[in-house]
Amino acid sequence: MLEKRTPITVEDAVDRVMEFATSGKTEFVDIEKAFGRFLGEDLIADHDVPFFNRSPYDGFAIRAEGTTGTTRENPVVLEIVGEIGAGSVHEEEVGVFEAVRIMTGAQIPTGCDAVVMLELAEEFEENGKKFIRLKRSYKSGDNISFKGEDTKKGTVLAKKGTYINPGIAALLATFGYKDVPVSVKPTVGVIATGSELLEINEPLQPGKIRNSNTYMMLSQIERAGATPIYLGQFSDDLELCYGQVKESLDKVDILITTGGVSVGDFDYLPEIYKKLEATVLFNKIGMRPGSVTTVAELNGKLLFGLSGNPSACYVGFELFTRPVIRTFLQSVNPHLRKETAVLGSDFPKPNPFTRFVRGALSYEDGQLVAIPSGLDKSGVVSSLATADVFIMLPGGTRGFERGMKVDVLLLDDQQGRSRI
Amino acid sequence: MLEKRTPITVEDAVDRVMEFATSGKTEFVDIEKAFGRFLGEDLIADHDVPFFNRSPYDGFAIRAEGTTGTTRENPVVLEIVGEIGAGSVHEEEVGVFEAVRIMTGAQIPTGCDAVVMLELAEEFEENGKKFIRLKRSYKSGDNISFKGEDTKKGTVLAKKGTYINPGIAALLATFGYKDVPVSVKPTVGVIATGSELLEINEPLQPGKIRNSNTYMMLSQIERAGATPIYLGQFSDDLELCYGQVKESLDKVDILITTGGVSVGDFDYLPEIYKKLEATVLFNKIGMRPGSVTTVAELNGKLLFGLSGNPSACYVGFELFTRPVIRTFLQSVNPHLRKETAVLGSDFPKPNPFTRFVRGALSYEDGQLVAIPSGLDKSGVVSSLATADVFIMLPGGTRGFERGMKVDVLLLDDQQGRSRI
Repeated sequence: MLEKRTPITVEDAVDRVMEFATSGKTEFVDIEKAFGRFLGEDLIADHDVPFFNRSPYDGFAIRAEGTTGTTRENPVVLEIVGEIGAGSVHEEEVGVFEAVRIMTGAQIPTGCDAVVMLELAEEFEENGKKFIRLKRSYKSGDNISFKGEDTKKGTVLAKKGTYINPGIAALLATFGYKDVPVSVKPTVGVIATGSELLEINEPLQPGKIRNSNTYMMLSQIERAGATPIYLGQFSDDLELCYGQVKESLDKVDILITTGGVSVGDFDYLPEIYKKLEATVLFNKIGMRPGSVTTVAELNGKLLFGLSGNPSACYVGFELFTRPVIRTFLQSVNPHLRKETAVLGSDFPKPNPFTRFVRGALSYEDGQLVAIPSGLDKSGVVSSLATADVFIMLPGGTRGFERGMKVDVLLLDDQQGRSRI
Repeated sequence: MLEKRTPITVEDAVDRVMEFATSGKTEFVDIEKAFGRFLGEDLIADHDVPFFNRSPYDGFAIRAEGTTGTTRENPVVLEIVGEIGAGSVHEEEVGVFEAVRIMTGAQIPTGCDAVVMLELAEEFEENGKKFIRLKRSYKSGDNISFKGEDTKKGTVLAKKGTYINPGIAALLATFGYKDVPVSVKPTVGVIATGSELLEINEPLQPGKIRNSNTYMMLSQIERAGATPIYLGQFSDDLELCYGQVKESLDKVDILITTGGVSVGDFDYLPEIYKKLEATVLFNKIGMRPGSVTTVAELNGKLLFGLSGNPSACYVGFELFTRPVIRTFLQSVNPHLRKETAVLGSDFPKPNPFTRFVRGALSYEDGQLVAIPSGLDKSGVVSSLATADVFIMLPGGTRGFERGMKVDVLLLDDQQGRSRI
């Protein structure tokens, strides 16, 4: 009773899924809660930066013309007529042979057009008045940060869908975003299937393993930027199980199941898709691991049927579910970032299909090197711990040697890529 | 009234700070909350993986001896005497010319020592009995995942202080860590100083700027793995301000102030350190930006006096505060990861001191390229948005050219480095 399945390419599979990927909504959160979220609108400068001509140093604001011809041998003396801290403003116009003590960031007083750094001004007092002596000349504009020189009002500083890092947080504050527009996180439900699964606090039994895929995936969902919900383990009973999936669909934006998608007799997820009248987008992909990854769609909602094998599950999530999550978060670069690396060790096993080998990325004198983690056998869980990259090995009849250039997909990156 | 300050090297400054860095405690959180935390204990395998000999494929468990001499021309027929789903166990010993239908991950039945992949077995029925026909021979051990072949009981799979990523989460689940030992997050308080500062929801005024450093730092603190607390803006009154710092110290593990550390007349943080009887570890570093970064210690608690200049503040945090936070999180690699990159554009300005230029990292055919962000002028905030690396330019009398190899410190990395 084997069902006949026709494999499609990874690119085709991603395209079919992305047809149903939809952009989510925008909500507002306090800026103190914005780190790690994704911008729900373009971040726009609401004013010039700097907002006024300002001093980049502690020192003295002067009029450059007063220093014309000044040298070490022929110094000039300027009278200190005021002092302004950052945040205060000097109201009177400053004369040609006058100077105003100014702090870093303070507004340049009217009339002044240059700043003398504190350490280059020799201060002295005479007859109760304060002066500075200068031993060089200044040009108009010396040591002044001009209005708008950093950023002009109206500039788009970061696009909608950008990950909010500390630099973006600084920009949000600079432009008065006390409440930050961020993308609403999609809710992603996880259901584990497999009668071999023990909950993690159960003691081990012959033939059984603890349910590790679920917790791996909850973390993957969070890393992708969504809110994970563990919906529990499926029933062994088809009818009951169908009801559980149907009910779960109302609670989430995206539903993931692990296991139950093989062609074996005991895997009944295909039956459930049929009963739900969901459209199966594909159920076989020309890739390893994860060839039985199945994705279905029901009323615009996506159901990811990932393999029960840990590495296949991991790969299936990152290739197919992550871009749907990132699109919901309004990112225009929802896919994993792709770069080139040198293969760090031999991978002699050829495969007719594209293989995604988990690996660890390192650098040798600035050159990316990707080392396949462990043996990459099915079920090898320990090698997942240090995996921060998928090494893409194209299908073919020969293996791969250390030193060859290979494509890698970065797992811990926030920039992403517009296409697979 | 300029205070004389003697600059020390960045390395010396880091060493002085790290003398007072202390390891934090361990607490337990549910595994569903463990993503992004740091392990509070070594993660140890509590059993062999696999825990029993198991099948890596759907197929048939057999005794290899029954297939001796089998070829395409000379096939062998085995009787199917049972079937086991994943999680169930076949109790009876299997005979030489018998086979048991087995699912991926299921335990190999007693007597069997090889697995035939489903697609290589031709199934048929005769006289109400089920059989498979095989056209090749098998060796003992073919297609079997052996007990412990992945991981032996007792193996340390990840060290204390490791960042919990999806792979680590899978391991935690596999080894029954329903409650996960994680490092307690340090509480890091931020106080902004500077009478030029407006709160972010205030309208702009001449001479003033919005307080962006605080929100940048709250994000940096969170990225480093700690809990940020914004304690508000300082008073302009020295006495009042002293009281605020003193009170704040009781609420946090680490205290950061921004601004107020220059040598100018209006910066009174040095006065406050004196009144607190805190030991100033240094107040001048041979680096740009951030040369006035000051760190003090009081009863084992560190007070970071970061510059009010945004880039200096950013750099000061990552070089000095981050490793203290990561040490609290029990990481043995608390410092920023250092790699080599090619400089992506000219940086003509020489500097007598080491310069940390914020930059954006990219890859060209697998080679790290670091491009300085913007002009890197003091106060340029927009270039911070895309910064994911510090480019370290050593002090000297000449500038740097595109294509030169430079050291870079990675800002978004979780592996870190044992020393600066």
